[in-house]
This record gives sequence, structure tokens and C-alpha cells, in this order.
Amino acid sequence: MIRPIRVGLLGIGTVGGGTWEVLNRNAGEIRRRAGRAIRITQVADKEVKKARSIVKGRAKVLPDAFQVARAPDIDIVVELIGGTGVAKDLVLEAIAHGKHVVTANKALLATHGNRIFAAAQKRGVMVAFEAAVGGGVPIIKALREGLSANRIEWIAGIINGTSNFILSEMRDKGLAFDAALREAQARGYAEADPSFDIEGVDAAHKLTILSALAFGIPMQLKRAYTEGISRLTKQDIRYAEELGYRIKLLGITKRTAQGIELRVHPTLVPARRLIANVEGVMNAILVKGDAVGPTLYYGAGAGALPTASAVVADLIDVTRLITADPEHRVPHLAFQPDQLSDTPILPIEAVRTCYYLRMRVLDRPGVLADVARILARSRISIDAMVQKEPGEGESRVDIVMLTHLALEKDVDRALARIERLATVVGKVTRLRLEALL
Amino acid sequence: MIRPIRVGLLGIGTVGGGTWEVLNRNAGEIRRRAGRAIRITQVADKEVKKARSIVKGRAKVLPDAFQVARAPDIDIVVELIGGTGVAKDLVLEAIAHGKHVVTANKALLATHGNRIFAAAQKRGVMVAFEAAVGGGVPIIKALREGLSANRIEWIAGIINGTSNFILSEMRDKGLAFDAALREAQARGYAEADPSFDIEGVDAAHKLTILSALAFGIPMQLKRAYTEGISRLTKQDIRYAEELGYRIKLLGITKRTAQGIELRVHPTLVPARRLIANVEGVMNAILVKGDAVGPTLYYGAGAGALPTASAVVADLIDVTRLITADPEHRVPHLAFQPDQLSDTPILPIEAVRTCYYLRMRVLDRPGVLADVARILARSRISIDAMVQKEPGEGESRVDIVMLTHLALEKDVDRALARIERLATVVGKVTRLRLEALL
Repeated sequence: MIRPIRVGLLGIGTVGGGTWEVLNRNAGEIRRRAGRAIRITQVADKEVKKARSIVKGRAKVLPDAFQVARAPDIDIVVELIGGTGVAKDLVLEAIAHGKHVVTANKALLATHGNRIFAAAQKRGVMVAFEAAVGGGVPIIKALREGLSANRIEWIAGIINGTSNFILSEMRDKGLAFDAALREAQARGYAEADPSFDIEGVDAAHKLTILSALAFGIPMQLKRAYTEGISRLTKQDIRYAEELGYRIKLLGITKRTAQGIELRVHPTLVPARRLIANVEGVMNAILVKGDAVGPTLYYGAGAGALPTASAVVADLIDVTRLITADPEHRVPHLAFQPDQLSDTPILPIEAVRTCYYLRMRVLDRPGVLADVARILARSRISIDAMVQKEPGEGESRVDIVMLTHLALEKDVDRALARIERLATVVGKVTRLRLEALL
Repeated sequence: MIRPIRVGLLGIGTVGGGTWEVLNRNAGEIRRRAGRAIRITQVADKEVKKARSIVKGRAKVLPDAFQVARAPDIDIVVELIGGTGVAKDLVLEAIAHGKHVVTANKALLATHGNRIFAAAQKRGVMVAFEAAVGGGVPIIKALREGLSANRIEWIAGIINGTSNFILSEMRDKGLAFDAALREAQARGYAEADPSFDIEGVDAAHKLTILSALAFGIPMQLKRAYTEGISRLTKQDIRYAEELGYRIKLLGITKRTAQGIELRVHPTLVPARRLIANVEGVMNAILVKGDAVGPTLYYGAGAGALPTASAVVADLIDVTRLITADPEHRVPHLAFQPDQLSDTPILPIEAVRTCYYLRMRVLDRPGVLADVARILARSRISIDAMVQKEPGEGESRVDIVMLTHLALEKDVDRALARIERLATVVGKVTRLRLEALL
């Protein structure tokens, strides 16, 4: 059997811990997809004790990240230290030693990306950075591969969850900026010094990366116009609302005849646009291509596990590339062909979901009690009910019910019984309901 | 210079014509990304004359698709004939002759995918099918690669634009199903025989593919539960609305302890969910992964150019794979490193956008005229204006204006002048507004 890919993890903080967890929790599934096991064999963290308590002997723990970046028995280095100082030296060191690199470090790439990619290109290694923008949302892959047929016209993205949470709170609860910021801090969405997030700096880093990918230009962070949300008033949010708009902190980059726009600022967006309805810490990136038109990518833009989802996807990407023949790189059905599963498809009767039931009944006492008794006997409980008043001279009324989770087979049986009631007219309309949570 | 990739196009109808157009229109950009030109050198279509009028001598036109599928001087065969009959034989023939295949044919893959992928695997060729689900939305790539770190929990998708258009019309305009269907037919969104779309068959094909990718199971179309929208009444849509829900035709596939759910049916969804607000012919797929949480992918699910966007992305994918060393397959910045562009980044003063302007003014006649004159002189025209009535005993009022497109530099100048007016109190609040269309 082919040996596992050996990963050196630099930094086992929030995202590093998430990466450790995802790689372990989903190890079987990941091997089925990648065609090869992926294992973190070395962890570098200054807090050696804390790191040891996480990895529990399953990886070597070192205080010196450079040692891991250079280690001969490491295939891929994952840089999760952050910042533009030592992280830069580590990434360049890993590249110089022929390691592939995976990083979530947007500040590093926006600032030193041109140099890093040139070094990687020269050395023939990959630098993967799906986690740098949009957390777990595969927006880098969408731009580099999914939309590669398009001339990209523009991108507009909610790419800083902290700011979006603050704006959502200001609008929802009519809070002033300061109060909303405190709420974000209380929930752990904003740091003690929140300026990177609220002044648009983090968004500018991410936008710089997106702009380079979209338009085939080098990273140019210094040319980004950056304006944050700290001066927004609740008044402006309310006025915008009255005019049919929402205010979002957007990163916008656009191709024009004169050049490329690259700007982060609070932006009014028509309230009916999907992106205007992205609330809380979620991210969403709207990409307009000349062939595909507008497309949108939505998901968690931060957090340990969502960011780890992108880091590990990059690890799988690199693993597939350095392992398989080109023809077999990405398996047709996502999993390696000898790794398909025989989990059965359930018949609809075995599905559990919620239901919308509408029935037309005679407007008489006791009807509802009969229906409710039948439902209860079939273990179907009612979440909400509305009785539509009969029209003038009308003796039939509509009853609409929403149920809690129930088994389709039980619903079949109950509806058959309900339809046999003399007080129920015709068939019961049954629709399924999904909370999608 | 490396020779172009030679593509044989089977069928130059709607999507085939779009593929021809995108490959030609964006040829330069595509070569910069793929590192190699991609050229349709042969086209097979029964309507030879029509095909010739499109390709205008720039490709060989043949009436016999099998001849193209077998041609020794073709690298990739694009199957856009559709259906499960001759298309199956053509795809298998192309594979047998060692061609890579790109197809948009969901019916074919949902029905015969297991056999086709096995043949491709054995012969060492790729079968790419991004266009089979969600049109131009790169959902196949998201599932196979972007979310590969996750144990997928469930998928819920609006994957049939025709049905979604009909449901949007029924809700928006209070139309009955039949009237909404006629509207869809009049606009060319529904065919004369619409049953494939409105009875959920097309959605079941696509869902079958998504389910296989998500859970690593073979295609099992026959086990899909399929219920369409043709029996939905406007009454139920209204009742659902009153209860806070929208009705969408969803394809749902979910992993449960007992097995995998695979079902297409009209579904009530909480109105505040993003996916509940996907209107008209647009598609959106919600994917819940255990690490990333919920992510959503939105865009045009059909149409010549959006579908061609996915077909051509597949062509670029295959080209990158069979051309470059693994390390250089997908360039770091999406474009090949020697192909970066030097298009300049514009300073913010050179940006044109719309603006929200709020100013506090003394409640006196003539103030508005002064402001309007200054704006007009700077070529800024007003799209909407609201004056907020002053509070009791308050002598200052807020004026809020939305402008049409204007140059930031002009706005700077105008605001400086406005702020010098004696009747204007303090600074003008300026926010940018984007219609995102």
C-alpha cells in the first residue's frame, strides 16, 4: 500500500486544531477520496505542552517551526501561524526545501504573494490557499477552475464575517456601531483590537487575492482603496432600508476600460439581491462572468472547522496531484472507484421529514378532534395549525397543519384514515417541509 | 509552441453553439489560463448546413458523429446531443478510442453513468460533466474537490430552472399552475412537452449525480422518489406564505443512519433562508458538510452561454491535466505565470459608481436648489431623494439622495462645495451604492 502523505503543521491554534480534528475525524472518507492517507506527522507550536495535549502522541511536537519546514520526511507544510513576519520566512524555507505548502494566510499572500508564487514556480512545488478567502467556501477553486471559461467582469463579496455580523446587528436591533461591536466581541466574533476587521483591512487582503485570480494580475494590496464600517450610523442603515437597500461591507473588484477597480467600503445593495440577505458572520461572494452571468458562493467565512475544511481540501488536492496519473487525479464520482459505498437508497416511505397538510372539512364541531386523534395515533405531532374561516354561506373550511418530524409511512397511513372521515372532503394535500438547518 | 488541444464537438445546437462562441470569444483568456490553445477542429451535426453557417470554415463539419468520436486527430470529444440513446454509444465509442469526454448529459450519466465511468477508468481517460448539474454553477467541482474534506450530510437544491420560474410566477403574480406554465413556455423556459421539467424527472437526473458524488455511491436513478409541481395550487402557495414559508421544487439527498434519502418534490422552506429567495430560472444548491457547515452555490442553471461556461471549464481542466506537470496544473494565480497582465489598478477617484448622500441642512427654502445645482455642475444626477421631516422644534432636517452613476472625483468636488454652503451642517455622509446587475 502506498505510504501516507506526511504533513507538517505549523501552528496548532484555532484553525490548526480544526485541521487536526477534520483530518482525524474524516480520515476514512478522506482516504477514499484522495486514494491515499493524509497524516499530520509533525506539529510545530511554541506552546509545546498545549500542542502535546491535542495530538496525544500521534505526531511529533516541536517548538521550532523551521525544523518542520525543512524536515526531510515531510511532504506538505501547512502554515497556520498567520501574519507577514515569520510566516513568510517559513513558507519560503519550506518551498526552498521542495515542500508543497498549504496556507490560510491572506495577509501574507496579499503582501508577499508575488514573491512566494515565483519561488514556488521555480522550485516546482504547489502553494495552495483555498482557506485564505471565504473560509470553507471554495471560491479560489471556483475562480481558478470552475469559471475558467469566462472573462470575469466583476466580483463583489462579503468577505469579512465580523463586519457583516456588526451590520446585521445594527439593522436587526437598531443598535449603534459601538453596541454592535461589543456584541460581536462578547460572542467572540471580534477581537479585543477589532481594527483589522472593522476598518476593512482583512477584506482588502482577501479582495487583493480575488482580484489577482480574476484578472490575471499580480497582487497589488497597496493600490486597494480601503474604508471600514466604524463610522456608519444606525440612521444611515435605516434610511437605506427605507429606500429599499441594505448596507454591506463589500470588497469589489471590477474590470473597466480604464483599468481595474479594487475597493473595500460600505455599500448600499438592493434589498432583494441574494447577497443583501446574507446575515451574521456568513460570507458570500458574487462573481460575474461574461458567459455564466452572475454566480454566488455562500458559507462560513471563518471558524476552526470551516477554515479547516478548506485547508484539508487543499491537502487532498495536492495529494491527488502528486499521487495519481493525470487521468485518475479526481475520481469521476469524487471517491476512488474501488472505494464506492453500498449504503442503500431509502424508499420514500422510510424518509423522515416535516409536513404541510391541507384538508377541506365540513365546518362542524369535532372534526379537528378526529383529525388530531388520527395523527397522534400515527406518532405525528402538530407544530402549527391554521383554520381558514369559511366564506359567506360556505360550509367547508380549509385546515392547514405543519407537523414536526414524522415518518412518511406513518403519514401515508394517517392520511388514508383522515380521508375516510365523513367530515373530510376529498384528498388531503400533503407537501414536505424542510427547515434546512 | 505546443500544439492546440483538438476538440470534436458532437451537436452544435443551443449549448453546442454556446460552446463554440465561448471558446472563440475568450480564446486569448483561455489560452492564458490553460497554457495551451483549445480549438474545436471537428463538428458533427445532422444539420450540416446550419453547422457550416456557424463555424464558417473554421472547423470540419461532418454529418456522422461516430466519425468524429473515432477521429485519430481529436483529443477531447464534447457530447452535446443529449438523451440516452445514440449519445451513450457515442460516448462509449469515444472512450474506446482513447478520447477524453466532456458532456452536459445528465440523463445519460444518471442512467448509464456507472458503465461509462467504469469504461473510462479502464481506458485511462477522463469523463468530465460539470455542465450536467446547475448549468454554469461549478457544483460538481465544489463537491468533488472544494468540499472533499467533509463528510457531506445533505444536499438540497433548486436544480430545475423551469420549475423554479413557474413557482416564482405563481407566488409573485398569484397565477395558477397552468397560467404560469404558459408564461414559461411563452418565454422559452419550458418546452412544448414540459413534463421532464415539471414532473421532476430532470431534477431527479441531476440529484442522482449529486448524491453519488456526495456519498460515494453508484448512480441509482431508479431509486429516486420523484414528484413534480403540476398539482400545486396557488392556494397552497399562499397558505405556505402566510405561515412564513416558500414552496420550492427541491432535490434532496441526505445521509441517515438507515441509508440515503434521494427525493425530488415540492418543499416548504422557511422564507428567510437564502435558498427560499432564489427566483426565476436561477439554480441554487445548498450543501451541508460536517466541517464547513452549510454552503450555497447559485447561478444560471441553463441557457447556451452558462452551460457552455461549464463545458469549456471542463475542457480547460482536461487540457491542464494532460498538458502540464502535476505541479503546474492549475497556476497559482489562475493564469499561467508568464501570462499575467499589467492592467493598472485604478485609484478610487477614477471609480464610477452610484452614491448615497446624506446631509443635515437648515430647514429653509432654497437649500435643496443650492445642493442640486452643485451636483448638476459636477455631472451628478439624482435618482431618488427623501427629505426627513424635522422633529418638533427642530430646525434641521436630513436630506438623503441616491445618485445615478457618477465619477468619484466629481463627487469629491461636489461634496466639498456642498459642505461650504452655510445652510449645510457638518460633513456630508457619502456611501457607495451598487446595483450588482
